[in-house]
Amino acid sequence: MNWISNSNIVIVGLGLMGGSYAKALTRLGYHVSAIDRDAEAIAFALENGSIERGAATPDAELLGRADAVIFALYPTAFRTWIADHQHLLKPGTYLTDVTGVKSCIVYDIQRMLREDVEFIAAHPMAGREVSGVRNADPRIFQNANYIVTPTDRNTPEAIEWCKALGRILGFGRISVLSPEEHDEMIGFVSQLTHCIAVALMTCNDNRHLVDYTGDSFRDLTRISRINETMWSELFLLNKTELIEQMDRFIEELKTIRAMLDADDREGLMDKMRLSTERRAYFDQ
Amino acid sequence: MNWISNSNIVIVGLGLMGGSYAKALTRLGYHVSAIDRDAEAIAFALENGSIERGAATPDAELLGRADAVIFALYPTAFRTWIADHQHLLKPGTYLTDVTGVKSCIVYDIQRMLREDVEFIAAHPMAGREVSGVRNADPRIFQNANYIVTPTDRNTPEAIEWCKALGRILGFGRISVLSPEEHDEMIGFVSQLTHCIAVALMTCNDNRHLVDYTGDSFRDLTRISRINETMWSELFLLNKTELIEQMDRFIEELKTIRAMLDADDREGLMDKMRLSTERRAYFDQ
Repeated sequence: MNWISNSNIVIVGLGLMGGSYAKALTRLGYHVSAIDRDAEAIAFALENGSIERGAATPDAELLGRADAVIFALYPTAFRTWIADHQHLLKPGTYLTDVTGVKSCIVYDIQRMLREDVEFIAAHPMAGREVSGVRNADPRIFQNANYIVTPTDRNTPEAIEWCKALGRILGFGRISVLSPEEHDEMIGFVSQLTHCIAVALMTCNDNRHLVDYTGDSFRDLTRISRINETMWSELFLLNKTELIEQMDRFIEELKTIRAMLDADDREGLMDKMRLSTERRAYFDQ
Repeated sequence: MNWISNSNIVIVGLGLMGGSYAKALTRLGYHVSAIDRDAEAIAFALENGSIERGAATPDAELLGRADAVIFALYPTAFRTWIADHQHLLKPGTYLTDVTGVKSCIVYDIQRMLREDVEFIAAHPMAGREVSGVRNADPRIFQNANYIVTPTDRNTPEAIEWCKALGRILGFGRISVLSPEEHDEMIGFVSQLTHCIAVALMTCNDNRHLVDYTGDSFRDLTRISRINETMWSELFLLNKTELIEQMDRFIEELKTIRAMLDADDREGLMDKMRLSTERRAYFDQ
């Protein structure tokens, strides 16, 4: 399948991410439909023109005509959906997803999938602090990272198709990682940072400090407003990696604490010099 | 002393903060001089009109005419300066500072100070990731917090004067805390957050991840570009409080880690709900 304007695309799961995909792809001229058990979400997207058709249940006609299906579901719901409804897909359909964890889901889905359709996994690293189709906005893709995580089972054509999808959606950088590399990276840059932000808010009752918080505190806790259903699932599905990252971070904090305790000013300054030098690299 | 336009103000220490005070007060019509051992900093400020006069050593004439002296020095340098040069001040001078820690310095300074001058401590909670007079900019005071930390030795007049200083500089919120309340607060909202940012950058060699970092990681590490001389001194001067805050935070991270390990999804969701609720309070 090429990215041509008569492609029929079905989005399964019409939340913030599915809704943003729908809006972007409709604007680009594709025929976009959506399936979501929340009939109100479907009605909203139909009304504002993000989709051409919609259904609150896996609709045989919509799915039978799909050239591509994009799954924007929680990981466990994604697995169940494939088991129950994959027979509705036509041969040759490309499937992709937006799931934030990969090893635990990609191999499973590929193993259970029919031979005549192909699942190529991707992680659009974009989001907002709010959820739901009403907050959908394709601008979240601008300058964001889009990561394709193929396995041995994927064809070069599907990988190229998936990268092209990221490009037309407007992502700033398209890259390819193995599911394992992806999960290690995401455990550090995303999951550990969310754990830290949550712990900073919950480690003491800090509401009396609201008048004294400056940019630092606000920056570090912005992401502590979190969708607990989605993030607890993502954390647990990547828990081996996340726990390793947490352990490494806790050890480092303990090292800094020991330096403070020992009045080791040189040690503290070394840490600060290293952090300054590394962070400068991220600002280039 | 009232805030009238013929007041002579001397800034001791012409870095980012001292330079920003100088610029703001000169614009407001005060007669501002500065003392800094870095003759280039003085020359720069004279040239761009931030100060009327300057000296690279504690100048008897400048100090003898001062109605108010603002100390923008590192805490230890501040103590030494008072010991060595307070005899140059005229009776009735108000002294204030910008130091980021209070208990360890305020009582010391007040104890060693002459009876006929008064030190009223303040912490302007403003800053930038860059330092030096060349980066001075009074806009950093806008919407920022300004905290006056009086003790039993302070007069109501000096406290009012110090609050008025914060107001004319343009701070968004002026408040009064005891030195101990200040240090507890700052240990949490500022020092702990800087420790976390540094540890996140130093806990592993993450430069290969530069292409995958999104807003979350960048937000949490922005403050890891840090002036190691200043911050190591501030950390050590408030180490009892900072260590307590670190311990509480590490315990909380360990609790979350144990929940992950035990697949305690309800526990994780409770933490996330609490963080979301508390953070919403900070966005009001």
